[in-house]
Amino acid sequence: MPRPAASLFLRLPDPAGDGAAVAEPPEPPQPPGDPRRFWLDAFRAVRAETERRAAPLSAEDQVVQSMPDASPTKWHRAHVTWFFEQFLLRPFDPAYRPFDERFAYLFNSYYVAAGPRQARPQRGLITRPGVAETTAYRAHVDAAVAALIESTNDGEAVMPIVEIGLNHEQQHQELLLTDILHAFAQNETHPAYDADWRWPRGTAAATAADAVIAGIHMIGHAGAGFCFDNERPAHQVLLQPVRVSRALVTNGEWLDFMADGGYATPSLWLADGWAAVESHGWTAPGYWRQIDGAWYSMTLGGLNPVDPALPACHVSYYEADAFARWAGKHLPSEAEWEVAAKSGALDDAFGIVWQWTRSAYSPYPGYQAAAGALGEYNGKFMINQMVLRGSSLATPAGHSRTTYRNFFYPSARWQFSGLRLAEFER
Amino acid sequence: MPRPAASLFLRLPDPAGDGAAVAEPPEPPQPPGDPRRFWLDAFRAVRAETERRAAPLSAEDQVVQSMPDASPTKWHRAHVTWFFEQFLLRPFDPAYRPFDERFAYLFNSYYVAAGPRQARPQRGLITRPGVAETTAYRAHVDAAVAALIESTNDGEAVMPIVEIGLNHEQQHQELLLTDILHAFAQNETHPAYDADWRWPRGTAAATAADAVIAGIHMIGHAGAGFCFDNERPAHQVLLQPVRVSRALVTNGEWLDFMADGGYATPSLWLADGWAAVESHGWTAPGYWRQIDGAWYSMTLGGLNPVDPALPACHVSYYEADAFARWAGKHLPSEAEWEVAAKSGALDDAFGIVWQWTRSAYSPYPGYQAAAGALGEYNGKFMINQMVLRGSSLATPAGHSRTTYRNFFYPSARWQFSGLRLAEFER
Amino acid sequence: MPRPAASLFLRLPDPAGDGAAVAEPPEPPQPPGDPRRFWLDAFRAVRAETERRAAPLSAEDQVVQSMPDASPTKWHRAHVTWFFEQFLLRPFDPAYRPFDERFAYLFNSYYVAAGPRQARPQRGLITRPGVAETTAYRAHVDAAVAALIESTNDGEAVMPIVEIGLNHEQQHQELLLTDILHAFAQNETHPAYDADWRWPRGTAAATAADAVIAGIHMIGHAGAGFCFDNERPAHQVLLQPVRVSRALVTNGEWLDFMADGGYATPSLWLADGWAAVESHGWTAPGYWRQIDGAWYSMTLGGLNPVDPALPACHVSYYEADAFARWAGKHLPSEAEWEVAAKSGALDDAFGIVWQWTRSAYSPYPGYQAAAGALGEYNGKFMINQMVLRGSSLATPAGHSRTTYRNFFYPSARWQFSGLRLAEFER
Amino acid sequence: MPRPAASLFLRLPDPAGDGAAVAEPPEPPQPPGDPRRFWLDAFRAVRAETERRAAPLSAEDQVVQSMPDASPTKWHRAHVTWFFEQFLLRPFDPAYRPFDERFAYLFNSYYVAAGPRQARPQRGLITRPGVAETTAYRAHVDAAVAALIESTNDGEAVMPIVEIGLNHEQQHQELLLTDILHAFAQNETHPAYDADWRWPRGTAAATAADAVIAGIHMIGHAGAGFCFDNERPAHQVLLQPVRVSRALVTNGEWLDFMADGGYATPSLWLADGWAAVESHGWTAPGYWRQIDGAWYSMTLGGLNPVDPALPACHVSYYEADAFARWAGKHLPSEAEWEVAAKSGALDDAFGIVWQWTRSAYSPYPGYQAAAGALGEYNGKFMINQMVLRGSSLATPAGHSRTTYRNFFYPSARWQFSGLRLAEFER
Repeated sequence: MPRPAASLFLRLPDPAGDGAAVAEPPEPPQPPGDPRRFWLDAFRAVRAETERRAAPLSAEDQVVQSMPDASPTKWHRAHVTWFFEQFLLRPFDPAYRPFDERFAYLFNSYYVAAGPRQARPQRGLITRPGVAETTAYRAHVDAAVAALIESTNDGEAVMPIVEIGLNHEQQHQELLLTDILHAFAQNETHPAYDADWRWPRGTAAATAADAVIAGIHMIGHAGAGFCFDNERPAHQVLLQPVRVSRALVTNGEWLDFMADGGYATPSLWLADGWAAVESHGWTAPGYWRQIDGAWYSMTLGGLNPVDPALPACHVSYYEADAFARWAGKHLPSEAEWEVAAKSGALDDAFGIVWQWTRSAYSPYPGYQAAAGALGEYNGKFMINQMVLRGSSLATPAGHSRTTYRNFFYPSARWQFSGLRLAEFER
Repeated sequence: MPRPAASLFLRLPDPAGDGAAVAEPPEPPQPPGDPRRFWLDAFRAVRAETERRAAPLSAEDQVVQSMPDASPTKWHRAHVTWFFEQFLLRPFDPAYRPFDERFAYLFNSYYVAAGPRQARPQRGLITRPGVAETTAYRAHVDAAVAALIESTNDGEAVMPIVEIGLNHEQQHQELLLTDILHAFAQNETHPAYDADWRWPRGTAAATAADAVIAGIHMIGHAGAGFCFDNERPAHQVLLQPVRVSRALVTNGEWLDFMADGGYATPSLWLADGWAAVESHGWTAPGYWRQIDGAWYSMTLGGLNPVDPALPACHVSYYEADAFARWAGKHLPSEAEWEVAAKSGALDDAFGIVWQWTRSAYSPYPGYQAAAGALGEYNGKFMINQMVLRGSSLATPAGHSRTTYRNFFYPSARWQFSGLRLAEFER
Repeated sequence: MPRPAASLFLRLPDPAGDGAAVAEPPEPPQPPGDPRRFWLDAFRAVRAETERRAAPLSAEDQVVQSMPDASPTKWHRAHVTWFFEQFLLRPFDPAYRPFDERFAYLFNSYYVAAGPRQARPQRGLITRPGVAETTAYRAHVDAAVAALIESTNDGEAVMPIVEIGLNHEQQHQELLLTDILHAFAQNETHPAYDADWRWPRGTAAATAADAVIAGIHMIGHAGAGFCFDNERPAHQVLLQPVRVSRALVTNGEWLDFMADGGYATPSLWLADGWAAVESHGWTAPGYWRQIDGAWYSMTLGGLNPVDPALPACHVSYYEADAFARWAGKHLPSEAEWEVAAKSGALDDAFGIVWQWTRSAYSPYPGYQAAAGALGEYNGKFMINQMVLRGSSLATPAGHSRTTYRNFFYPSARWQFSGLRLAEFER
Repeated sequence: MPRPAASLFLRLPDPAGDGAAVAEPPEPPQPPGDPRRFWLDAFRAVRAETERRAAPLSAEDQVVQSMPDASPTKWHRAHVTWFFEQFLLRPFDPAYRPFDERFAYLFNSYYVAAGPRQARPQRGLITRPGVAETTAYRAHVDAAVAALIESTNDGEAVMPIVEIGLNHEQQHQELLLTDILHAFAQNETHPAYDADWRWPRGTAAATAADAVIAGIHMIGHAGAGFCFDNERPAHQVLLQPVRVSRALVTNGEWLDFMADGGYATPSLWLADGWAAVESHGWTAPGYWRQIDGAWYSMTLGGLNPVDPALPACHVSYYEADAFARWAGKHLPSEAEWEVAAKSGALDDAFGIVWQWTRSAYSPYPGYQAAAGALGEYNGKFMINQMVLRGSSLATPAGHSRTTYRNFFYPSARWQFSGLRLAEFER
């Protein structure tokens, strides 16, 4: 799997902020003396990482869309480029000439305010422009953005757009991997994205006691560094005493759940979850299949035996919730997770699997979406989805933080999604 | 399962509790000297109310199911009867002989633990047993329950089942009306459930200032009276300062929203909400139709002109949320609603329209569902639905309380669902 | 539109025609001396037969619609009445006052030219008008039609409309039974339409050799009596030598097909047929179910054991075709069937089960649909459906003839549909 | 558009046969002195033609599947190769080693008897093997087939399989073009398969009177040359006197139909056709779009203005039937078409657009499908589809004949499908 070359990214030091003492991903580097140089380096590094992730994929690999929720690699590469063109170059560079005016239609995702666009389920039909032309499109925009960064007199307006563009591109870097894995999983020949890929090793065993937290805490992003609008405003929450597990749930525990009839016991499931089990015929996590009595899982390294010691992955919220009920526990809320993570009390909070929480994705009290098309980034999805916290093996370096709110529908299984458990103190 | 501590059907005054000084529905009567007499009266009163609500409906009216979410009147009448048979008579009356063993299949709703059952979307196909036989079924069970109440030596076990059975039946009394209204609304001749029916008049104008609340409050049911399990445990919440409107949103305000392009402005809508607008072609609240330029609404009294002074009704969560965004405000959370209601600060909290909150329907911290089939009552629906608070014109007397949590999918419009607004203090 | 040459409801002997020597349903009565008296009697007899068929059904039975292809009993009763109102009374009786103008919307079936109408899948939602009002509607129209027949000076225009109206009502008499059987079959209590109902006994064993036919023959309706437009024009066809079985395929033979893996052998099936087997999970004819190892079938008399000696029934075209392939034979074409029937060579051609033919439902060469709304009667359905010949136990007396063309989609199973086989002479 | 280099193909002279005097595609060359040389040349020519048609397409173009009915170019190239591997090399060449055993799963189309296979709607997900590996697969099989042809001692068994394999590949050559055109038509940038492509010019104006035919004729394939099993057995038919138009219906005539409200007049349409108009929103033939008041059509040459003089194309059966009704005529039956074509009475019968007939696709009397998997080639599709006759601009040279029966569902529009009219003589 791609391992981003440099650990640089983005955030300013955050003295009053959200995790100084926290075990989380390596701190980003100090801010540069010359902001232009800093942003130019960041821009080039992130753009290069996208290309590095796409490099193992053939032209055919890059064009397919294996389900409406997933997007083609080529589309990801072009869409994040369009994002800079639409929100940075068009407003701030009067001399900019779009690479191809028609790309605004092809590569807008869901920004209604930015005009009409290719229907989402039909992104896989765009065979032209091809991979080579997409690469040229990226180069065209790269050059224009670099020139703008170097020449702008309006850095206070320009750099935040660069920053959100890079964070946006990092999100698509993760999706690029989850989506191609879904595509390969549909192929009976089990192609490997990277034949040498191995699951990351997390913490071998719990290194300390579980977190027990309670009382009034601040959650959300209050510091000076970058965050998405959905992490704001920071605000106080009141927590009942709860014990959050240090460890992720493992494949071995999941096999116990299966052996105990977990997928055949309706009383363990939410009603909508049980309907999903029945309609999809779920009997195991996503990408698992049984061959001659043994369980295998489709991974970025191809079809591999399921290792009981590794974290459970590719489970939906419905499955995570049923597992927790079977275990006599529950999933933590996102506030519980965040407070526990900030206390340094969680193993493997980042970089292995996202962790479902029992929190519906809702606006924080006082949440305000931005004006204009960028206001569509997060706010309009705050219904019917559940929050995941942490980050996964596919998350780019520098993109994780304790306040980060990821969200998917409760039936989704194609992300690197796992779980940890919690239980209330009595 | 809900375990009411004491065998009281209707609540005592609750000095330390959740609403002593609150303007809410008329207080229930004092508890009886003789609990058997009290429960027998309560049983007869609730059972009679169901029949009173069904009385205006013909045999044909009572059999139809106009959509999978709705149920036939006859099915409601039989299902609530089966509930007593299944959970009270079979376990507690060894001499009881079921009216017809096949009814367990026909009239079980969703209790998987209670055995197989008629598929929900096909409840409208049960033409037999007919209305007359259903009435006989009710009489058979009524007699057996009355005898059991009068003769039991195990009142501590029996009366709580009677109590939940009656609360259950009251919920179906409301659904009986919402469901037949939906059926009649499909009929181009616009039948009236009751030609003399009129909308209840709420508070004419705000009688005092809006509620402004903040800080730590207790929500949930802590008193001695009956509640459903989802109202428990009572627990503290921490609220940001917020102003909750005293008044319900009116049809007149809704017409302003429509005139301002509310149903044609995607930026006002959640993404899933906008998809619902487009797929259903929504341009006005449920049951509204325009005739010669004027708006009419299908009601229990037939097709009537829309009165701008009345509360908006039959709006989905998606619409309520879009309206709030258009108004520059938001919906209250269920905690905000409950605290404001307990403070006596809300007009028309009860008895007109349920009020959508922005809270997803989730378990309270420490929630425990009961063991066995009755544990399926509430818990398994705690996903993908939104909480409504208050009560409606269709809610039976004595069934409302400040801690009550109603819940429906965000696309639902056939309930008597409206809204009030809130905004954060800055 | 069908234009019967003479104002005869039931056919004269037809020496040059299509069946003089044929064993078919009992000859209709001789034409009357007084046509008004004749038509009045016919009108009253057919109208009474509809009511006779509806009589065992409760109000609830009469309102339900168990699938979009079926219609409620009450709807049938009202729709055939509307037909007289729309096509006879409105054009020919200036003094006629409709019973209720809104019924045109509720009870039009598919006559686009006659105005907008209730969506077909929602016919079961019309709880009002109820059964009693429907009976009053029938009486209102009955009186007006009777008066028109007795008083008209334009019998040449009026009587053909009466005639087609009666034939139309007879078709709905059959559907009334097939549709209520489908509704009852959805009910786990297996209601009987008539507890004393028994399958008609056909010919016990083949009474003579199979028919072998070949060469040039006339098919279609050439005589003076009534026929539908789709039976015209009569025309010559050239047949390859073919042997058409005298006997209907029986349940016993069908059980052999099942035992030999008929429903699990894709090579026996048309591709679309196999897709239907897989999507519907078919393993036996419609309404069959296995209880403790024995096969039962839902009938008008309730749930009865399958009798191997009786004709197979409630099979789709797909199943009939697969059975024929399994038997090394094929289904007859409609022309082969008609020529064989006219030669007197078929047992049980009428009155037990309709017989699928391998002919797609297409216009005869030179077919002309009538102008106006009645032109929608047959012609617009001449695609995607297959022809059945003969008649069934549910077909009213006097409604069968050798030239009659019934038609249904190849997946339909709720009609009384069976089959006989054929094979080419080599 | 691809124009096959050589006009050689397949059929032997057919003295008693089906079209000696007929104006149809150029006769195939005389049979070779050395059959091995003949078949080797034919094999190489057909295989090369497939590659020539794929040559303008990028790797991305070749992998997409734009709807379940269409298949990717790469899949076509591999599937026809698998056909030779499965039906020729495996049975007749004991030494043959499959290129990759997994390809049998990926590239089997619908031959149930040949084992499990990729679900049809998911053919577009096979990104690997890629284009290069597919080319290698073709070369591997080409070499093995060439060696088998040259070395076999069992030519009487082998050559017929070669022949059907080549005819099969020719069918996919046509589909390759229709399917990529559908894919390109989904792309707002309107890619051209060949920027220089132009519509073939048919006969400028009727060169002689329409055909008037009647009486007894032989149809079907009776000669010694190749045909598919569905063209057999040849047999006599009896035709009513009918006039079949010499000329194809043109775009200009279709514009008249549109201007006259053709797409908005339900009385012109079959019921299922009108449902298709409403559900798909059809207002013009497939691939047409209106830009600034002018009509354009997506073609193999990109988006071009509609030329009124050219034949109408990309119309469904439903549209063809409605047009004929509007014109006061009807479509010819397949027998009428074939007899007229054999009489030399049709202009542009071949090589421009396939022509819908009013005949449902059914077995000829006495039809026998082959044993084994090849028996699935045609017979199992003989339901729910309509016959088209002639051939189109996409049909490979040498693949057309007067007895050829093409077939598609009546809603299909992505083929090069047009029509000619007929009317009965009175």
